[in-house]
Amino acid sequence: MPEEEEQIIYIGKKPTMNYVLAAVTIFNNGFDEIAIKARGRAISRAVDVAEIVRNRFVDGVKLKDIKISTEKVTNERGETSVSSMEIYLTK
Amino acid sequence: MPEEEEQIIYIGKKPTMNYVLAAVTIFNNGFDEIAIKARGRAISRAVDVAEIVRNRFVDGVKLKDIKISTEKVTNERGETSVSSMEIYLTK
Repeated sequence: MPEEEEQIIYIGKKPTMNYVLAAVTIFNNGFDEIAIKARGRAISRAVDVAEIVRNRFVDGVKLKDIKISTEKVTNERGETSVSSMEIYLTK
Repeated sequence: MPEEEEQIIYIGKKPTMNYVLAAVTIFNNGFDEIAIKARGRAISRAVDVAEIVRNRFVDGVKLKDIKISTEKVTNERGETSVSSMEIYLTK
């Protein structure tokens, strides 16, 4: 079984429960830490995913750390800034 | 001047810059700590507000703490859960 190897879930536009089940599956496969990462409007969904996993699905999951930052993104209209968030859950 | 007295900004549906300017005004009036609070979809905007204040507007503002939790909300359709977030900035 892998240990101390952080798995990353990137939050996009799929339904919240898809990410919740992905996280639950990762924990059930023996991993002890998950990083849930999101940018822009997906940040709200990242918090939902972390809270649902923590409160309803996996016993003993704790919030280890939350980080917020600003990333530069280049698109067709030039460079813009977008907020990003990382939520670390451990079992 | 007030000290060690936390001011709270609740993030709603106004434009992001309205909240940024509210936070800047509070810091410029001698307060050392602001809690930015949001629920549901407003959480993304709360992160934007914190990042803009921190990176562009007020020198020496630091991220003190970030908390996420789940709140029960009762509306006409009964009781539902909503994610909430608190971001603490200090000067």
